[in-house]
Amino acid sequence: MKLSGGVEWALHCCVVLTAADEPVPAARLAELHDVSPSYLAKQMQALARAGLVRSVQGKTGGYELVKSAHGITLLDVVQAVDGTSPAFVCTEIRQRGPYATPPEQCTKQCPIARAMGAADGAWRASLAAVTVADLVTSVEGDSGPEALPTIGAWLTEGPGARGSG
Amino acid sequence: MKLSGGVEWALHCCVVLTAADEPVPAARLAELHDVSPSYLAKQMQALARAGLVRSVQGKTGGYELVKSAHGITLLDVVQAVDGTSPAFVCTEIRQRGPYATPPEQCTKQCPIARAMGAADGAWRASLAAVTVADLVTSVEGDSGPEALPTIGAWLTEGPGARGSG
Repeated sequence: MKLSGGVEWALHCCVVLTAADEPVPAARLAELHDVSPSYLAKQMQALARAGLVRSVQGKTGGYELVKSAHGITLLDVVQAVDGTSPAFVCTEIRQRGPYATPPEQCTKQCPIARAMGAADGAWRASLAAVTVADLVTSVEGDSGPEALPTIGAWLTEGPGARGSG
Repeated sequence: MKLSGGVEWALHCCVVLTAADEPVPAARLAELHDVSPSYLAKQMQALARAGLVRSVQGKTGGYELVKSAHGITLLDVVQAVDGTSPAFVCTEIRQRGPYATPPEQCTKQCPIARAMGAADGAWRASLAAVTVADLVTSVEGDSGPEALPTIGAWLTEGPGARGSG
């Protein structure tokens, strides 16, 4: 089982966008993270489709968070990039073979699907309990209070950012 | 994010093996579940590599559970078939680009990796809290106390099973 690698990039982008007071071009986010602009643009488009960021057009255009960092959970970002499908999909094995349970008797989910679904729920609940604001607090604890404001200022200055428009 | 489809087959096999009082050939398990014998054999081999089932050789040979159903958790089965790698892998994005954190300052995991790791832990803890014996209890609740013993008797009788040696 493996999450899309885009989840990690999208989460990093959300964290640094909290520190930018103007929209940030995707190319500038890519430069900050030293990654292919087209790859990063794809993750930002996924976040935009999910309503987590919006693309502001024009000379000073770029991406900005739609909601406050307190209003965006890790689950929002994970599902935006990796989709909402559960990791375990029941194919109704109990309805196969010589001792198949007739479909009309399958009024409840298979016990295996119930247990796997409970684990999926625990994973999603854990992700839903952490917001981008919590990540910002952790980054500040690890790297000091100036780290994100410094990056935020850089994101909206210089080549590829507003100043170069 | 998607688990290997083999997880579902492996879990069903573990549940029905609790009801067999003799080793069950993989071909008989495949017949019960109406699935390709070679595909099912692959899942059983994964369970055997993980020490959850063992292959008994000889005329009355087949697979049997190594431990009691109380001693095998869903996590054991999931990891046997799908591997133990976490769903989220940190690629140290914080160490990239113009504001890279120097590796020597990365003494703690990245905050994003910590949060994603906590969710992975919640998923695994949920799977580790359910045993194959719990699944058996649920199946009995759904299908009645005779369902599994009937299947267990069938598994060790007839073509492909012991009687056909």
